[in-house]
Amino acid sequence: MKLAGRVEMPYLVSRVLEGNLPGDPVERMLPVYLPPGYDDQPTRRFPVIYVLAGHGGSGPLMLAPAAWGESFPERIDRLIRSGQMGPVIAVLPDCWTIFGGAQYINSSALGRYEDYLNNELVPYVDAHYRTLPDRMHRAITGKSSGGYGAMVQSMRHPELWGAMASHSGDIYFEFGYGPDLARLHANLMRFGGLEGFIEQIPTIKPKSHDPFFSVLGMLCYGAAFAPNPAAHRGFDMPVDMETGALRQDVFDHWLAWDPVRMIDQPEYVDAWRQLNYRYLDCGLWDELNFQIGTRIMHNKLNSLGISHDFELFNDGHINVPYRYDVSLPRLQGAIRES
Amino acid sequence: MKLAGRVEMPYLVSRVLEGNLPGDPVERMLPVYLPPGYDDQPTRRFPVIYVLAGHGGSGPLMLAPAAWGESFPERIDRLIRSGQMGPVIAVLPDCWTIFGGAQYINSSALGRYEDYLNNELVPYVDAHYRTLPDRMHRAITGKSSGGYGAMVQSMRHPELWGAMASHSGDIYFEFGYGPDLARLHANLMRFGGLEGFIEQIPTIKPKSHDPFFSVLGMLCYGAAFAPNPAAHRGFDMPVDMETGALRQDVFDHWLAWDPVRMIDQPEYVDAWRQLNYRYLDCGLWDELNFQIGTRIMHNKLNSLGISHDFELFNDGHINVPYRYDVSLPRLQGAIRES
Amino acid sequence: MKLAGRVEMPYLVSRVLEGNLPGDPVERMLPVYLPPGYDDQPTRRFPVIYVLAGHGGSGPLMLAPAAWGESFPERIDRLIRSGQMGPVIAVLPDCWTIFGGAQYINSSALGRYEDYLNNELVPYVDAHYRTLPDRMHRAITGKSSGGYGAMVQSMRHPELWGAMASHSGDIYFEFGYGPDLARLHANLMRFGGLEGFIEQIPTIKPKSHDPFFSVLGMLCYGAAFAPNPAAHRGFDMPVDMETGALRQDVFDHWLAWDPVRMIDQPEYVDAWRQLNYRYLDCGLWDELNFQIGTRIMHNKLNSLGISHDFELFNDGHINVPYRYDVSLPRLQGAIRES
Amino acid sequence: MKLAGRVEMPYLVSRVLEGNLPGDPVERMLPVYLPPGYDDQPTRRFPVIYVLAGHGGSGPLMLAPAAWGESFPERIDRLIRSGQMGPVIAVLPDCWTIFGGAQYINSSALGRYEDYLNNELVPYVDAHYRTLPDRMHRAITGKSSGGYGAMVQSMRHPELWGAMASHSGDIYFEFGYGPDLARLHANLMRFGGLEGFIEQIPTIKPKSHDPFFSVLGMLCYGAAFAPNPAAHRGFDMPVDMETGALRQDVFDHWLAWDPVRMIDQPEYVDAWRQLNYRYLDCGLWDELNFQIGTRIMHNKLNSLGISHDFELFNDGHINVPYRYDVSLPRLQGAIRES
Repeated sequence: MKLAGRVEMPYLVSRVLEGNLPGDPVERMLPVYLPPGYDDQPTRRFPVIYVLAGHGGSGPLMLAPAAWGESFPERIDRLIRSGQMGPVIAVLPDCWTIFGGAQYINSSALGRYEDYLNNELVPYVDAHYRTLPDRMHRAITGKSSGGYGAMVQSMRHPELWGAMASHSGDIYFEFGYGPDLARLHANLMRFGGLEGFIEQIPTIKPKSHDPFFSVLGMLCYGAAFAPNPAAHRGFDMPVDMETGALRQDVFDHWLAWDPVRMIDQPEYVDAWRQLNYRYLDCGLWDELNFQIGTRIMHNKLNSLGISHDFELFNDGHINVPYRYDVSLPRLQGAIRES
Repeated sequence: MKLAGRVEMPYLVSRVLEGNLPGDPVERMLPVYLPPGYDDQPTRRFPVIYVLAGHGGSGPLMLAPAAWGESFPERIDRLIRSGQMGPVIAVLPDCWTIFGGAQYINSSALGRYEDYLNNELVPYVDAHYRTLPDRMHRAITGKSSGGYGAMVQSMRHPELWGAMASHSGDIYFEFGYGPDLARLHANLMRFGGLEGFIEQIPTIKPKSHDPFFSVLGMLCYGAAFAPNPAAHRGFDMPVDMETGALRQDVFDHWLAWDPVRMIDQPEYVDAWRQLNYRYLDCGLWDELNFQIGTRIMHNKLNSLGISHDFELFNDGHINVPYRYDVSLPRLQGAIRES
Repeated sequence: MKLAGRVEMPYLVSRVLEGNLPGDPVERMLPVYLPPGYDDQPTRRFPVIYVLAGHGGSGPLMLAPAAWGESFPERIDRLIRSGQMGPVIAVLPDCWTIFGGAQYINSSALGRYEDYLNNELVPYVDAHYRTLPDRMHRAITGKSSGGYGAMVQSMRHPELWGAMASHSGDIYFEFGYGPDLARLHANLMRFGGLEGFIEQIPTIKPKSHDPFFSVLGMLCYGAAFAPNPAAHRGFDMPVDMETGALRQDVFDHWLAWDPVRMIDQPEYVDAWRQLNYRYLDCGLWDELNFQIGTRIMHNKLNSLGISHDFELFNDGHINVPYRYDVSLPRLQGAIRES
Repeated sequence: MKLAGRVEMPYLVSRVLEGNLPGDPVERMLPVYLPPGYDDQPTRRFPVIYVLAGHGGSGPLMLAPAAWGESFPERIDRLIRSGQMGPVIAVLPDCWTIFGGAQYINSSALGRYEDYLNNELVPYVDAHYRTLPDRMHRAITGKSSGGYGAMVQSMRHPELWGAMASHSGDIYFEFGYGPDLARLHANLMRFGGLEGFIEQIPTIKPKSHDPFFSVLGMLCYGAAFAPNPAAHRGFDMPVDMETGALRQDVFDHWLAWDPVRMIDQPEYVDAWRQLNYRYLDCGLWDELNFQIGTRIMHNKLNSLGISHDFELFNDGHINVPYRYDVSLPRLQGAIRES
């Protein structure tokens, strides 16, 4: 589908990712969608939405056309062209790592992806594109781990983000990650242990999805939430590598990063109060059980008197990009030039 | 296959199951396998092995012939006939309930199945068959929930049981039951809630295995481990029925029945010390993750200096009845007339 | 469930199966269900229904109790006890072979199972049980390959059979067997070729259903329909063992045994005209596509003016024993003492 | 991954597709990969490889980046950059239709895609890019339906194509398409019939792969191989829409387009003799059984004395783009400037 807008694909060399432990690339593409009108009105400035990919994905992968489907630029272009939402710039960051992502936070085991997003990409975009360069006109959204990133970054950086939408975001880790943790030890054994798995990452995926993403996710979250420079690979494993039993002390570090717990902290409550707009949804049949934590968060926000849109829709965790059709127009409405 | 021994199938009316809350039958078949030689040597007495079925099974169902397989009587008959083990009587109790079992313990929500097994069936068998009627010649075994029953009953009744074997027995509940608990709320919603599920129990199973047994198990264990006469259906649900979140206070009642925790209690350690023989195995790829707890138990027994046979074999949780070929000869050796 | 009637399980030594090529047993159990009233009315004679098992099954396996289900004796006993049908004797033949069955016909590659059924079992049953020993009071039924057997034997032996019911019987082989034939060569390669597969028959099944039954069925039907004493294992393979291509000349021998083609022959039309009753059903979503041929047969019978009951029900090929609840009362009505 | 070469994505308006019956777009993107060196050597001309997508795919979709994988341009760019092959231009045509493709032939039911490819795209590419514009320097390849297109177009247009490679190309239709034909009628019923299916094409796919592609393929091939302007939707259905039975007369039209049969015609043999290079491969475990016909074709070519590369590799039908690493260097070697 020909776009009414267009996509630029500059390559940036990051400073904050330099010397990252896994050796992931420091030069990355930053896809930026520019709406129809951007070129015709050369002095007009536009609000910006940052879209965070889920675990195993990245901004550049969101450019992929799909049979009987849409790339992200095709989707937002259609919404704008059809008048369902006003024009915005959309930014699709690449926060990919060896383990498929980094949960958009800083970790000595993976890299400073929180800094990369907030301190490098946002200034770059504001410097190179005609944005409305302030929090009132900047939103953050994403799906799955991207929804998680949107929740957490908008809690931690209210100075940057004015609106937030999370689709099926990671939450209530005991039920969201617990089932995969229970199988982690046996799954690793199938791949010849941790190093055997890491060695096979580049080749096992296309042939055997299951339990590839289950294991990869546990390593990703473990590296993000429980870094330990003294440990093998730079992070503490969440399960005992002899028996497979849960290491509760390690998992407590994970839980400290659980949005449903973070919202109990006053500074994060304050941050979310400052947002113009908040959106949370999840599938009723989410295979990762995130609907449970999403509902708990909804109840907590209600108790706090923080308004928000909330929906549990009739679907699962995957193949739900059509949910952006619901959130993007609302996000745009919340950050548009008044 | 024609048996060298034979099976009697008397029907017993239970007193202790009278008035059980779910209204399950009080008259039940008690299959008793009698070995070759039993009829020819009319004064000889034999050791006895009680075999507990897994969740969703029962002693009478263990009589079912199988294509390219064996019923339990065919299996033990072959082992005896071929000389791999000496003659024993085998008893196959029926502890079935509306939820597919009762974990072989007493619960006001299900019935007094511990009493049924220990106080009714054992005396009946000793009265009606030529057994060696003492703990030194009486063993208990089983698979999955039956292995659980063997572990727990031999801890609680050393006066009755002299040897124990558990195949893939329920253990380390946070990883064994946790994944199914995480999905319980959504699964119940699929069936129209708790009462909707219960209503459909008789009809849904043959058409949709998954998640039938997952839900049924959670209800069974909930009713067994957390009875509460004041609660709906007589037991506390382990998850919040609005959000699906874990009810840790209820789950703590479950954990009190976890063999890997029970073994921390001195009276249970003493009980297991008194056994002539202990056997624990589990599949390395057990779909319910019981291999983790089995290994933890193995480590604890080693620390306690309690000898036992232990094996993690290269298979999963289901279709592993061939493991009885390993344990039955050893159990028989431990309880045979010396 | 306690039966109101009872089951006898005599063992018979067959003469016609003596020396069968695969070396399958000649002594087999013949389960005979005797209805309530049989013992109380010691001179009364009863009509008889022969029930043929599907491929991979046998009469003795139909005795297996089932969780949340019924054995065949439990089913027919319930139908009689509840008054849904009158009393009948039910006979459950064992026509098992190394390849899981023999399609109830004579084949030099498997054995003379048509003769075994018609010339040995029928006379034996009439001699040992109080039957109404004539075609007007004798029916034949079955499911899948058993339904096939019922169709074919009632075409070939109208002197013995007075009523017929086929549930999901094998028919229209090009679409029923074609998909499995297309994969036969590759499937055999997975098992190390024909001999490798045969060697593994006793052990592969419980662990990997698919494609076990697909391959086993092809070998069974090949041995039944295309025997050739000069060929390896005594039958011609339906596919070329180098390329995997169809051997149309061999498949033509299969097609000669396809009920939807057999009914084009006048003697078989005559045989079915002589039946008191005919019943055909199949699932709309039959995984083996037998609903297609069942409907073609229905159309042909309509053209021939042969009355019959016909139903395509809303289900698949497996787990449909509840369909006997529909056919058994009608069969009994067709052969009862008038 | 940054490319050493680059991709142009011009949009072309087709004349031959004008007025196509399904109303598919006439303006389409034509991705053209230009190798490293193309821009630096402004007078140099390059050989060209046309790459045909499989059913359900298209040239533009081959631009999609993949997690742990490569887009087609990334793949060929890596092969060239690393010296595994010399530089070529690669052309990725879009021959998509409502039914997911057109088998690259002309059909009144779908459109004149053979003409589109040979008479429009080839001249356009030769006019707009620095190609070596003759058959000796032009190759055709593809996977699945794309491999089919490569085989058939190189048979029919030896004046245009000088080398051919087919990966897992459609062949031996009775076993390749037969299993899906057997299920077509029931599958259509699930979707509410033919029109119900067509209506749902845009929405059903992402949620239920199976049997979406099975049905879509049958409609695509039916429309391509058996057009009939007088029939509903412009083509004859291969199965009877009342019973589901095969319509052999219609299927004979399909078989006329089967490469394993086409090669029996002298003009196609002559065409393939004229090729500089021929390559055929298929997975041993091809889910569509194309390995059977590929081997038959191999045997026929051997009998004809036509040299070719042939390999049955240890994999299935999907996720095998790595096979291009084998064929592309050989194709390039066959068409490079000498």
